[in-house]
Amino acid sequence: MKNTATLLISCPDQKGLVAGIADFLYSHNANILHADQHQDSELKLFLMRVEWDLGGFDLDTADFERAFAPLAARFGMVWHLALSTRRPRMAIFVSKYDHCLVDLLYRHQSGELHCDIPLILSNHEDNRKLADFYAIPFHHIPVTQGNKEAAERQQWALLDEHRIDFIVLARYMQVLSAEFTARFPQRIINIHHSFLPAFLGAKPYHRAFERGVKLIGATSHYVTETLDDGPSIEQDVTRISHRDALEDLIQKGRDLEKVVLSRAVRWHIDSRILLYANKTVVFD
Amino acid sequence: MKNTATLLISCPDQKGLVAGIADFLYSHNANILHADQHQDSELKLFLMRVEWDLGGFDLDTADFERAFAPLAARFGMVWHLALSTRRPRMAIFVSKYDHCLVDLLYRHQSGELHCDIPLILSNHEDNRKLADFYAIPFHHIPVTQGNKEAAERQQWALLDEHRIDFIVLARYMQVLSAEFTARFPQRIINIHHSFLPAFLGAKPYHRAFERGVKLIGATSHYVTETLDDGPSIEQDVTRISHRDALEDLIQKGRDLEKVVLSRAVRWHIDSRILLYANKTVVFD
Amino acid sequence: MKNTATLLISCPDQKGLVAGIADFLYSHNANILHADQHQDSELKLFLMRVEWDLGGFDLDTADFERAFAPLAARFGMVWHLALSTRRPRMAIFVSKYDHCLVDLLYRHQSGELHCDIPLILSNHEDNRKLADFYAIPFHHIPVTQGNKEAAERQQWALLDEHRIDFIVLARYMQVLSAEFTARFPQRIINIHHSFLPAFLGAKPYHRAFERGVKLIGATSHYVTETLDDGPSIEQDVTRISHRDALEDLIQKGRDLEKVVLSRAVRWHIDSRILLYANKTVVFD
Amino acid sequence: MKNTATLLISCPDQKGLVAGIADFLYSHNANILHADQHQDSELKLFLMRVEWDLGGFDLDTADFERAFAPLAARFGMVWHLALSTRRPRMAIFVSKYDHCLVDLLYRHQSGELHCDIPLILSNHEDNRKLADFYAIPFHHIPVTQGNKEAAERQQWALLDEHRIDFIVLARYMQVLSAEFTARFPQRIINIHHSFLPAFLGAKPYHRAFERGVKLIGATSHYVTETLDDGPSIEQDVTRISHRDALEDLIQKGRDLEKVVLSRAVRWHIDSRILLYANKTVVFD
Repeated sequence: MKNTATLLISCPDQKGLVAGIADFLYSHNANILHADQHQDSELKLFLMRVEWDLGGFDLDTADFERAFAPLAARFGMVWHLALSTRRPRMAIFVSKYDHCLVDLLYRHQSGELHCDIPLILSNHEDNRKLADFYAIPFHHIPVTQGNKEAAERQQWALLDEHRIDFIVLARYMQVLSAEFTARFPQRIINIHHSFLPAFLGAKPYHRAFERGVKLIGATSHYVTETLDDGPSIEQDVTRISHRDALEDLIQKGRDLEKVVLSRAVRWHIDSRILLYANKTVVFD
Repeated sequence: MKNTATLLISCPDQKGLVAGIADFLYSHNANILHADQHQDSELKLFLMRVEWDLGGFDLDTADFERAFAPLAARFGMVWHLALSTRRPRMAIFVSKYDHCLVDLLYRHQSGELHCDIPLILSNHEDNRKLADFYAIPFHHIPVTQGNKEAAERQQWALLDEHRIDFIVLARYMQVLSAEFTARFPQRIINIHHSFLPAFLGAKPYHRAFERGVKLIGATSHYVTETLDDGPSIEQDVTRISHRDALEDLIQKGRDLEKVVLSRAVRWHIDSRILLYANKTVVFD
Repeated sequence: MKNTATLLISCPDQKGLVAGIADFLYSHNANILHADQHQDSELKLFLMRVEWDLGGFDLDTADFERAFAPLAARFGMVWHLALSTRRPRMAIFVSKYDHCLVDLLYRHQSGELHCDIPLILSNHEDNRKLADFYAIPFHHIPVTQGNKEAAERQQWALLDEHRIDFIVLARYMQVLSAEFTARFPQRIINIHHSFLPAFLGAKPYHRAFERGVKLIGATSHYVTETLDDGPSIEQDVTRISHRDALEDLIQKGRDLEKVVLSRAVRWHIDSRILLYANKTVVFD
Repeated sequence: MKNTATLLISCPDQKGLVAGIADFLYSHNANILHADQHQDSELKLFLMRVEWDLGGFDLDTADFERAFAPLAARFGMVWHLALSTRRPRMAIFVSKYDHCLVDLLYRHQSGELHCDIPLILSNHEDNRKLADFYAIPFHHIPVTQGNKEAAERQQWALLDEHRIDFIVLARYMQVLSAEFTARFPQRIINIHHSFLPAFLGAKPYHRAFERGVKLIGATSHYVTETLDDGPSIEQDVTRISHRDALEDLIQKGRDLEKVVLSRAVRWHIDSRILLYANKTVVFD
């Protein structure tokens, strides 16, 4: 089984950065497996992802922070260390539409998604049987006009109890409160069924159909306070024609949504995504 | 050389339509080469394109209207007949950006576009040499804040004089007046450098870059009074990543624009486009 | 619920064909919903698909053949009539890989595939639990070097017993005998994990990886006697790069295989595919 | 104007490599603009591209080799240094088809291709006028059954005289001799009008049409002794249907060929391509 560490770094771009990081890793006998970096020349920003084999690495991961701190301070780094042996804990929120849920659960079972799924939360009972088949605990928390706040408190309690790292909204048809999204910065992934920023908001396929577009799209993004405006993680499109009725758009769209959401989830789990300026860099 | 007639028909959907049209053509000994039709079940609309060989067709095209009129009246058809031997006359409007112009002129020369190009109109001198190389008359009509109306009158005079059938805006950086667009309904084709309705208006690549989209697009459409809102004819996208700077978007976008515009122009010339409900049906 | 008839026709191209068919349908008060046709000018071949509403159609489907026979004879038609109320019966063959099976069963359950699935046949036990979840009978027929003939006899017996119309090989890892394929002409659909004719035969992803291709593909096709040479129904590709290891190709390929196979299955069920000259025409 | 150096490195993968390179550059005060690396874990190979600003770099490029040699020797590097101020010199070979030539010359003129084009070589006169328009010297060297060897000697003489760095075969319809290709290892780029390895050899569109494929492709690759088998640089595809006749494939294919060839040429010029195991790594 893989035993690697992945370091994500953001900081102001400056000379000596790569040398500093590479020297640090080499001095502790790291065997680098992958390294990718990006410099934004306009914003003078440096972003890096580096993954190394922990076999032979002479620094205990518990000591990493202390050892890395001087370098991080010198360059003003924001950094995060992820270990392949520490699987992130993902919660899935779903309503009635099940295609994204089916897709995520199958990918998880088949080993594509290196995470644990301690729970599925839904405002409907419909998907319990599916959750049971994959042996994932399913919690039904109804959400109504009046009980939204209470429902979110219930959700939080479960998320806390299960030490959830991040949330995937697999066509969850409720808008989360600003308070909720603020608690999970860059840790809620949503799928929107349009090529954002086209067709923000409700019923994007209907509006795409009326507009007579020649391609339909889907966008996975981190959720922020502003609806459908968080940083895009992945987007894709598929061609349609006048031969496609609205139902055909919806059906073709489902295939897009599944793929576009699952890519984002995999990249998030594998620590491949860095954020800046309301954008993502994906080191794929 | 090809000698065919193409009939475009729109009318309310009703029983007996196809039989009526097919019988009419068969009774005049037409050899049908292509036929395509579309029914919009919601709007109860019937759209058809049929192309036949004129060899053996026993109706003189001059007599077609009179002969077809009773059928057209019976079904309430809006129809248009195009002859392959009658090449449409296209005017190109261009400013300084030349990539779409280069592309159209090359495609025309190589036989991809079955039209005549009696003139190129530009608000700048820059592209005269290119026009000369392809032996297309080039007219420089400067457009300023103050002379817009006068400039359009000059343009109209030239378009009338050369009996222009339709206009292609090959990255023409001036907004046409409502009066102008009204004179050429469904006969002005524009290329917009975004996947409409995302990034309407100015500087779409800049805004796409800032938004952090993962795909950039281009849209060719008929020009209507409302800016960037006319019916889309063709759209396409290309993938970008964080490794692409703004200039890379612009460069990749040029390849999209050329292809997306030229497809629209070819379909228009070949009478493949029908309009309804601010959408296009393309019988490709 | 939809109540329509779909007629597929192939015959030598000749004048009066469309008129003949349209007159026939109109004379029986058919309300045509979709019609699509194709003429191969080189082979002088005419292909048509026409679908009409059976509400108001004055011909009992039992009488259709007798009524249509004179016209069919006059033009030398090969034709087939399908009724939306008569769901085709599909058998799925599968081995251990389950991604295509999972995908087909989900699409069936969600209403995308208008067919019945009386049975799944497998040479392994692995997928029984999945079949149970979707309540589809699962039959385990082991195939070994020595018992192939006997196994196929068992399979035939089940296919006959369940009056199976067509078979889908959802990554079934056994080559069917020529005798078997001959029993189901144009009625066995396979998914091959390459862009055929590149990488025919075994281990296409391994060979694509070694060859250093920039795109990987998948092909769904009808099975004929010659391995991987039957008429292609659908193909698609996805981009890869040097950052993709062999396992990444296999993982990305799974998404392709699912989509490319399911499109073929849906088109087959909806009577959208016509064959000629070892090719398919798909009236999508 | 840009004043940068780009270093391409291949060597066995080993610890300390990145640190060694980064330290070297930092010690000479390099401001790194882009860095990309790839490790092939199976072949234990390390590949890197690093580009830095020469402003502030304290090593004269004439001294680079001497200064870098110890590090290169220690790690067994194969390396190459390219300077943005030293534009590579490209020769274009062309026959009668002009679409790729038109495209390359336009891209060159518009600043997309940072190279010089000292000459165009052709076995036909047809494209002289076009070369004249772009003011590129055009040399007509007829190639016949009997004079091939003599013709290649003439070509060599011109290539030597003009100190050509690399050759682009822009639909050049002659097979180069093994002796010729051996003289320009990894320095001849060809465009093949299929998705290789499908449809190797002559008339790929004809064979794709007969095979009934659903996508057509194009492949740009380095030329080696074995026809159509050199390492692929770029590939792309476009969708076709039964509505596309052979001429439509050829026309759609032209758009593919232009884009796929020009990307390869740009990447080659910008030192973005590394080779190993008959594959390319493109640091785009």
